[in-house]
Amino acid sequence: MSEIERIALIGAGVIGAGWAARFAINGIDVATYDPDPRAAERVNEALENARRAYARLTLAPPVPPGRITIADEIAEALDGADFVQESAPERVEIKRALLAEVSRATDPGIVVASSTSGLLPSELQADCAAPDRICVGHPFNPVYLLPLVEVVGGQATSGDAKARAAAVYRSVGMHPLVLDTEIDAFVADRLLEAVWREALHLIDDGVATADEIDQAIAYGPGLRWSVMGTFLICRLAGGDAGMRHFLEQFGPALDLPWTHLKGPALTDELIERIVTQSDAQAAGRTARDLERLRDDCLVSVMQGLRARNHGAGAVLRDYEARLFSRAHRASRPIDHDLSRPLRLHTARVAPDWTDFNNHMTESRYLQVFGDATDALLRFAGVDSDYLAAGHSYYTVETHIRHLHEVAGEEPIAVSTQVLDCDEKRLRLFHRMSHGETHVELATAEHMLLHVDTAAGRTVPAAPEVLTRLREITDAQAGLGMPEAAGRGIAMPTASDLRSDPR
Amino acid sequence: MSEIERIALIGAGVIGAGWAARFAINGIDVATYDPDPRAAERVNEALENARRAYARLTLAPPVPPGRITIADEIAEALDGADFVQESAPERVEIKRALLAEVSRATDPGIVVASSTSGLLPSELQADCAAPDRICVGHPFNPVYLLPLVEVVGGQATSGDAKARAAAVYRSVGMHPLVLDTEIDAFVADRLLEAVWREALHLIDDGVATADEIDQAIAYGPGLRWSVMGTFLICRLAGGDAGMRHFLEQFGPALDLPWTHLKGPALTDELIERIVTQSDAQAAGRTARDLERLRDDCLVSVMQGLRARNHGAGAVLRDYEARLFSRAHRASRPIDHDLSRPLRLHTARVAPDWTDFNNHMTESRYLQVFGDATDALLRFAGVDSDYLAAGHSYYTVETHIRHLHEVAGEEPIAVSTQVLDCDEKRLRLFHRMSHGETHVELATAEHMLLHVDTAAGRTVPAAPEVLTRLREITDAQAGLGMPEAAGRGIAMPTASDLRSDPR
Repeated sequence: MSEIERIALIGAGVIGAGWAARFAINGIDVATYDPDPRAAERVNEALENARRAYARLTLAPPVPPGRITIADEIAEALDGADFVQESAPERVEIKRALLAEVSRATDPGIVVASSTSGLLPSELQADCAAPDRICVGHPFNPVYLLPLVEVVGGQATSGDAKARAAAVYRSVGMHPLVLDTEIDAFVADRLLEAVWREALHLIDDGVATADEIDQAIAYGPGLRWSVMGTFLICRLAGGDAGMRHFLEQFGPALDLPWTHLKGPALTDELIERIVTQSDAQAAGRTARDLERLRDDCLVSVMQGLRARNHGAGAVLRDYEARLFSRAHRASRPIDHDLSRPLRLHTARVAPDWTDFNNHMTESRYLQVFGDATDALLRFAGVDSDYLAAGHSYYTVETHIRHLHEVAGEEPIAVSTQVLDCDEKRLRLFHRMSHGETHVELATAEHMLLHVDTAAGRTVPAAPEVLTRLREITDAQAGLGMPEAAGRGIAMPTASDLRSDPR
Repeated sequence: MSEIERIALIGAGVIGAGWAARFAINGIDVATYDPDPRAAERVNEALENARRAYARLTLAPPVPPGRITIADEIAEALDGADFVQESAPERVEIKRALLAEVSRATDPGIVVASSTSGLLPSELQADCAAPDRICVGHPFNPVYLLPLVEVVGGQATSGDAKARAAAVYRSVGMHPLVLDTEIDAFVADRLLEAVWREALHLIDDGVATADEIDQAIAYGPGLRWSVMGTFLICRLAGGDAGMRHFLEQFGPALDLPWTHLKGPALTDELIERIVTQSDAQAAGRTARDLERLRDDCLVSVMQGLRARNHGAGAVLRDYEARLFSRAHRASRPIDHDLSRPLRLHTARVAPDWTDFNNHMTESRYLQVFGDATDALLRFAGVDSDYLAAGHSYYTVETHIRHLHEVAGEEPIAVSTQVLDCDEKRLRLFHRMSHGETHVELATAEHMLLHVDTAAGRTVPAAPEVLTRLREITDAQAGLGMPEAAGRGIAMPTASDLRSDPR
């Protein structure tokens, strides 16, 4: 999978250490040179962060990690390397001299890339031997996680060198953006630098604080930018009429003092160029297609952040807590006929609950049944206060029967029968059916135990909960025991099979 | 939960329609006025998009949706409204006249907010009656999903009006950023506009295309911006030495031609201000703390995008596919002792698999067991080609026993016993244990049927698969039947309980 076996890293600051972690985790031996005595510590810290992140990032089997060595001399780091990445401080004279030294000490066939955020490759390669293999490979912090790397050549750089650098980056899970034209700060850092300078003006002008500026990004535009860039986003802001409409509507704002940066003149020629490029990017997808792609991704991003309870995810979590508590207050036990199975939970099969056949995956059945169990418990008085006081029911046994497939977006409803209960035990039987056709899709039988969650042992439930559960059990007694209840899994013997008329 | 019951929306373009969807979904009645005959259609489309997104966004019980009406006159929309949101075209003369009309037609106690992206509230409120309740509430597209809304007052606006607007937005799941100082384009749109103008320069200069610019955002900096703003990100780029080091290192770049925008002079006073605000924002968290927060969130965001197979998520999916295929080539069935339970699946409990107690949720047990079943099937030759040819095994029955709680991040391993198989049936028994302590955490027994997936009926498995499964069944016969196999759920009767010595 990897294109190279050993890489030399010149410079081990935040970026160089991040490269060391990414390459090592991908099974490539790393030799690092940095005169700073803290370099080894920085590399170790980056590697520790990266290991921690990759343990969550993927369940794919990791490759055996590469070996990291800290070299005392540049020549030692370069020895045997089949790719070189330079990440020295952002000063043209330092980088230019370093790259010249590296170029003289390496075989002319070895590609040498600089991590510079914006210095021109033509300047960096000016003093190099065999400058055709010198290019820029500009990554983003944290280098071990973010996929983007801009690959830029100078006047002397060959297309082959850029292609080989891109292949190396791709082999370690990155997304190389190979640019045709060199320009100060390339593409990404021009945008980053514009944001940075505008943000500095805001602080300098006393308009907003660093934290307010950060909030203005991470709770809104930043969420979109993780999904789509500025042009697709603006296209969608133009509605069905797309980019042309957006430029008509917001073009005049280019003359307003909305940033310290003066835009280019929005000539007809520039408008045509933007509209044409935007159409190419949309590649025939309608505004509706792109909106749904954007929304699907935004939902996933926000759910991801919810799992970390951070930023927009913390807002979502707080919002949901209020929805749950509102629903709890609104649920009226009195509305239900206790002698019938209780229909307390409905759901819709989310698009990401299905496999490649668009069938709901096994585990989502249990999720829906688990939610139905929670609904029954809330109905019986096991609410958030009860849980907060340190008591809960834990499921200890589950028996599911799958009767029909369920497809994405289908509505489902669960009705629940309380088969039995005592002080510590609760036995439930759920039936999941299609929300409209009422076809029975699956059943689940559960045994739950009432526990003291801190002590981790079973204890009797609170009297009011027990009273409520017994009331339901008694009222439903007339329903009888479901045929599937109490059944174990069995496979008929060969003689059973022979007598099976089917 | 909601602060208001009925809102008047003046203007139903992309933004106004988005507001209609957000408020209606949150149970608030919406009256919309827009002279454009396509307004109703736009509102319906936004509502449809929003419903679709919310069905995935949260499993919390939705509130009964508010009613949306399209008014023929502004006065009709305003009738009975307890909040007004104006989203007319971005022209100061249009908005100023509209807001003046709205202000004369509403009770002076009703807050009126403008969605303007950057016009000054002092100008907008200039002709209004009771201008103290006129403010800006600037949202971001899609309004029904993105939490950010900037709340800005003009010279005449009262603090109470801003607080009331913020409370309304918070009640519908948003994150109001209440700014003290009004400035053209506020905060977020100054940054957006700087990016937009710089991006227009890049196209105008022929340096990059719209799609390249978008890639330069969404595969790198955009991912970070969904988690943290520019200042926290730069602080971390400075390593342990933080913002002061970053400013030392990248301060000189402010003089480089890295954007068309000229930054402010980086005076000692400005440096101190930025460092102080950055320290306040970090709130005592070390670089390591913040790096891990950033990385945890980036992993979750990338996993979210992986679920949609989009952008950075598609890069991750492709990377993982290569890791899996590499591991698959490396795995040799011959390495396994078929007479022992087969240990074919390991996993780590992802942070988002756990409930608020940090215990793995019920449904994730079945997910892990389902993955173990898939691993056994692959081991027996049911690979992607086999599935593509239209045959598969479907689980029809499951019996899970939960023996111990499992916490987030814990390693788990599953070993599998094939209890029995015939032409169409397969009976499995999995044991899930802690990856290091080997404590048994749960067991699962499954019955599977071999199916023709297109026809949706059971058919015999392919001979080579059957041979392999029988080979395993025979080799494992010596293990005997697990005690829990074939067991159903039962609850002891009262007399059983009395004789129970525990």
